[in-house]
Amino acid sequence: MSVTFPRGFRAAGVAAGFKASGRPDLGLLMAEAPATAAAAFTTSALPAAPVILSRRHLADGTARAVAVNSGQANAGTGAHGITDAEETASIVAEAVGCDVREVVICSTGVIGPRVPLDRLRAAIPPTVRSLAVDGGPAFAEAILTTDPRPKEATASAGPYRIGGCAKGAGMIAPRLAPLATMLAFLTTDAPVSRPALGRIVAERVVPVWNGVVVDDCQSTNDTVLLLASGAAGGDVIDGGREEAALGEAVEGVCRELAHRMVADAEGASTVLVVQVEGARSADDARGVGLAVAGSSLVKTAVFGRDPNPGRLLQAAGDAGVALDPAALNVSLGAVPVVDGGVVLPVDERVRSALKEAEVVIRLDLGAGSASATAFGCDLGYEYVRINAEYST
Amino acid sequence: MSVTFPRGFRAAGVAAGFKASGRPDLGLLMAEAPATAAAAFTTSALPAAPVILSRRHLADGTARAVAVNSGQANAGTGAHGITDAEETASIVAEAVGCDVREVVICSTGVIGPRVPLDRLRAAIPPTVRSLAVDGGPAFAEAILTTDPRPKEATASAGPYRIGGCAKGAGMIAPRLAPLATMLAFLTTDAPVSRPALGRIVAERVVPVWNGVVVDDCQSTNDTVLLLASGAAGGDVIDGGREEAALGEAVEGVCRELAHRMVADAEGASTVLVVQVEGARSADDARGVGLAVAGSSLVKTAVFGRDPNPGRLLQAAGDAGVALDPAALNVSLGAVPVVDGGVVLPVDERVRSALKEAEVVIRLDLGAGSASATAFGCDLGYEYVRINAEYST
Repeated sequence: MSVTFPRGFRAAGVAAGFKASGRPDLGLLMAEAPATAAAAFTTSALPAAPVILSRRHLADGTARAVAVNSGQANAGTGAHGITDAEETASIVAEAVGCDVREVVICSTGVIGPRVPLDRLRAAIPPTVRSLAVDGGPAFAEAILTTDPRPKEATASAGPYRIGGCAKGAGMIAPRLAPLATMLAFLTTDAPVSRPALGRIVAERVVPVWNGVVVDDCQSTNDTVLLLASGAAGGDVIDGGREEAALGEAVEGVCRELAHRMVADAEGASTVLVVQVEGARSADDARGVGLAVAGSSLVKTAVFGRDPNPGRLLQAAGDAGVALDPAALNVSLGAVPVVDGGVVLPVDERVRSALKEAEVVIRLDLGAGSASATAFGCDLGYEYVRINAEYST
Repeated sequence: MSVTFPRGFRAAGVAAGFKASGRPDLGLLMAEAPATAAAAFTTSALPAAPVILSRRHLADGTARAVAVNSGQANAGTGAHGITDAEETASIVAEAVGCDVREVVICSTGVIGPRVPLDRLRAAIPPTVRSLAVDGGPAFAEAILTTDPRPKEATASAGPYRIGGCAKGAGMIAPRLAPLATMLAFLTTDAPVSRPALGRIVAERVVPVWNGVVVDDCQSTNDTVLLLASGAAGGDVIDGGREEAALGEAVEGVCRELAHRMVADAEGASTVLVVQVEGARSADDARGVGLAVAGSSLVKTAVFGRDPNPGRLLQAAGDAGVALDPAALNVSLGAVPVVDGGVVLPVDERVRSALKEAEVVIRLDLGAGSASATAFGCDLGYEYVRINAEYST
């Protein structure tokens, strides 16, 4: 059910003709009433037009409708791109009957081409008519590009429901500020204050997504959006145990979606989970995790099932984080491979650990008590094939 | 002639048994008299033992002998690695008859294994006996790992000669402080003061090498060393027009070696030259250049000859450098592909520009007058194959 699992939301997904394949490419998510909203966007210096527009529309912390097209990223489109984004928001606002500033729009696809507004204009009214309380899966399908399947997750926190969906298989290395073209849409029916929702995004959502790396290429379009409808009723959540519980559940949904994202990444055959502990700070832990999960040399070694633990040291050392070699311990699955900074001889257990469909690398930096998890994938021939033939 | 083109140097390269292949793997470069020396090393938080030792030995700005083994990186080797490095320097010092602190050592190869000191001990005396004034090519051959061929260059600046050689085909993304396992050895017979030599390394050598990217993986062992024998005679160079002229010639040798490095990079079929101009600072220019030259999406598109200029915007935007989209112009060869931040429609000229063996990408940031060049290569199936099978 993904984004329509929480009460107060309807969604739809249709084929509007943005993709040459004819697959679904227009998703619409709608809150029955204005929802509290918090988001995080790409830190690219060349953000896509829908990012610029949605950041502006979300400044007041509320949203009613989210429209997503897949096929064109509406990035590298200059002033026309901004006009197209504004026109898209107006078309959606008119069709659903809300203020244009309550509309969030997202685009994903090829950078450069403009979104065909004539097709959008024709497709929006039937999409609005097909909005449904069980429309989450159709929405999750419509936002995909090179993803092999939709990525959806749900959770509950006491009386509240949380739903989410995400897309993204390449150009993934979100560096969100307080987030690639990954797009993630999260909903809850909990009544949440705007500050609390902002904290949940900054403290629970962004750290998960910024710990995901496929090809170390941050997109121009990355967007994560969390909408709270309040449709579950009850007192407004603003701090305390309730916020912590809700935040934890939202984080869980994000981690599940992030895990599915790397499992479905372009050309990936193996999930890399890098758990870093003993760091001075969470930022240090995430930095080392991303450096290891994102290293081409680690990724190709994992693809080849080639036992080369020295590359874990290369990658960790290149994270820009101060390390004490003597305090550094690394294991592959349950097998120690680096002890006090010294690479241990490779044995059969290391080779076996590399044969798993999910390779777990643990690094204990021995410097503190902070930790973080990074999600990545291997780098094989298929990633090269997909990306050498992308636009042709 | 590479490093032995300048007067005052002898060199040798032999097979000492460090490589399973039996190819040459021990290089020795020797200055007839103590040479003025300046170097730059990896900024990895986990530098290899020879880096730690050589940084210490070069603190006084002089060197006499440089010993390089290929096969084992002596990284991830803990306290044993340091002891092995010290022992190596002692063996060399004794054999050539200099102080141990006048010995610089470098290692390149697999991270983890120790250098077999018994083989080193047996090989050093015959290597010293084979030192020759035309030994540069043998030295350049002995330092290679996955490189398909040696990389050598020479130049002259007035009465002075400059020579250099380098190795490195993977794990290349030097981030030297005032530099990957790239190793580069530069020699000159100019008489140069220590401060002047330091400035030439910081201002002329490091910027070139820090503009090279193969796989965005900085090594634990990166080292660039510039030795000045003074054997050409004449007044000591310290500032002024003489320093500038010598620096320019040294920079030219570095650029030639850097270009050969990316041309010979693991699995590369195409050289990527990214020229960035109109930047606020040289750091900004280099940052954008490296982001474009290092982007997996740009690299795979070039490999596939896939015209996808939007990816150039993705990469430039992700450099961490503030950009004004409206001021940004990009061309591929002589063909404009982005005009004022807007991706232009792809035509036959773009496809033709992508068919060159060397793809030149020019970005004008329109923000200032600083410029920089980054050297990279494409990413194809062969890079994956080499690195999926490296240690097995």
